[in-house]
Amino acid sequence: MSRWAIGIDLGGTAIKAAIVGEKSGIVIDRTIPTDTASGPVGIVAQIAGIIADLYRVASINMSSKDCAGIGLGAPGAVNADRGTLSYPPNLPGWAIVPLRDNLQQCLKEQEHLMIPVFIDNDANAAAFGEALYGAGRDFRDFLMVTLGTGVGGGIILNRKLFRGSNGTAGEVGFMIIDFEGVSIHAGITGTLESLIGKKRIVELACRMIEASPKGSIVGKFCENDYARLSPRHLEHAAKEGDEVSLAVWNRIGSILGVGLANVVTLMDIRKFVIGGGISAAGNLIFAPALDQLQRSTLRSMHDGLEIVPALLGNKAGMYGAAALCFG
Amino acid sequence: MSRWAIGIDLGGTAIKAAIVGEKSGIVIDRTIPTDTASGPVGIVAQIAGIIADLYRVASINMSSKDCAGIGLGAPGAVNADRGTLSYPPNLPGWAIVPLRDNLQQCLKEQEHLMIPVFIDNDANAAAFGEALYGAGRDFRDFLMVTLGTGVGGGIILNRKLFRGSNGTAGEVGFMIIDFEGVSIHAGITGTLESLIGKKRIVELACRMIEASPKGSIVGKFCENDYARLSPRHLEHAAKEGDEVSLAVWNRIGSILGVGLANVVTLMDIRKFVIGGGISAAGNLIFAPALDQLQRSTLRSMHDGLEIVPALLGNKAGMYGAAALCFG
Repeated sequence: MSRWAIGIDLGGTAIKAAIVGEKSGIVIDRTIPTDTASGPVGIVAQIAGIIADLYRVASINMSSKDCAGIGLGAPGAVNADRGTLSYPPNLPGWAIVPLRDNLQQCLKEQEHLMIPVFIDNDANAAAFGEALYGAGRDFRDFLMVTLGTGVGGGIILNRKLFRGSNGTAGEVGFMIIDFEGVSIHAGITGTLESLIGKKRIVELACRMIEASPKGSIVGKFCENDYARLSPRHLEHAAKEGDEVSLAVWNRIGSILGVGLANVVTLMDIRKFVIGGGISAAGNLIFAPALDQLQRSTLRSMHDGLEIVPALLGNKAGMYGAAALCFG
Repeated sequence: MSRWAIGIDLGGTAIKAAIVGEKSGIVIDRTIPTDTASGPVGIVAQIAGIIADLYRVASINMSSKDCAGIGLGAPGAVNADRGTLSYPPNLPGWAIVPLRDNLQQCLKEQEHLMIPVFIDNDANAAAFGEALYGAGRDFRDFLMVTLGTGVGGGIILNRKLFRGSNGTAGEVGFMIIDFEGVSIHAGITGTLESLIGKKRIVELACRMIEASPKGSIVGKFCENDYARLSPRHLEHAAKEGDEVSLAVWNRIGSILGVGLANVVTLMDIRKFVIGGGISAAGNLIFAPALDQLQRSTLRSMHDGLEIVPALLGNKAGMYGAAALCFG
């Protein structure tokens, strides 16, 4: 017997879906644009459609009795037990939606498919994907951090997702490390996301470039249009030795290190898997983060500290969603 | 069958020991001064002596086959699996000591008692004591915070101690909430303990009294000798309406609230049990802490937030140590 599942990564821009073999990984995957205007009912129908499509493809080679289910990672607060998604910020018009049951119902009525559905939030799904198929395979306990527009997190303890009493654990982006500071995000002062979310990296870079007496070569990467400046430009400039860009990454990595230190101190988690678009900067972030992590924790907690890049890129969500069915 | 155990709370000043019935709680307890000068060997002999003493008392009414063991809470980093205590700050001359095995051995050779010994650090033991016998009985998951000379913590998940991968979880006092600040403790900037440890509360009060144009009545509680000022004086003054003392407690509570917010955000723990000498200030701390806790977390995490005082006072350690044998 070789189990398989369909993993769905529901995002505000795209719906990604894949047939995932428990042992073999992704067999085939599809991406369609999210029809956000159609609201919960329309999007559930879209998801059911892509599932039915993949299910037919899977049926050619795989037995339906080996299908472990449909897994879905959703962009917002998910109650995995109840199967609800609450107020997803990038899906306008959604309140609290019983997404799991609605999808199960729609699959049955629209596609005549009776398959169990498992859902969780996208950050948790990504973490579980890395745990089973990616950079976390050798770690019993780790925190996955997604660095992008926002800063997301998912916690793996004992090789399982740690969701907490109410399913909201792992929101590392809202951890406060500078409560007397000036950065605010979502009404909270000094959170990790308020300091190293994508926009804040660019703002910091602009301030540092302006303040630098020697100037920076980063302008040549953004055609001197600083309104267009992106972390990618800072990455290229840093790799060419631009001191200001290097200083920006040092500071971002160092702030990340402070946040990770709190996870070590509180949860005794010593392994960190870093994904998301910003993590492409690699050691420009990881090296100062590890350095700061050591300076921000007790020596008795230094054994085994490791920061590694995620391995599954933008497929982590699909892998993780499918993994919810195997876990 | 009614199980019982002997719970030991090993401190730098005193060794407290009690016979604890699983259902009935503390039956009898003893306290002796810790003979710190005698080092690990001497102190282990002291502990074995007090155990033998209590064991003889217990034998009058209780069956030795109902004895679940000896539990011991120790002041420092404990590896519960290996039974070692590492570099306890208040026991000079101790390095890494196999305390569990040494005590078991000493009981056997010196007292002819063959009883299993369980050890953990004192903050964990106190948390487990509150979980089974105190303020945490109705909470599945909670953090116990001990506010005293230092700021300690112990985490209960699913009614069990959460120790983490290496047994160091719950060190909430070393959580960083002000990484750009000026307060340093144990070489780390902006930790909770660096901001609200006992000494820091007094320092803050002295600064605020000095800066206050209206003055403070706190002087009358410390005989105008500010070198003697203690949190207890600030508590009395605040209860008489002293504005400066009230402002000090507001600030201390508020800082505690920021720290607790990180525990909500990261671990989805929503219940907090606060003990230790400083917690005698009660609502002077708890009210501003809860207020700040709500302002420092996402609204979706506000359900069920609660901060309650510990119930077992300085008996939590003995209760918790005994509970290690029942758990």
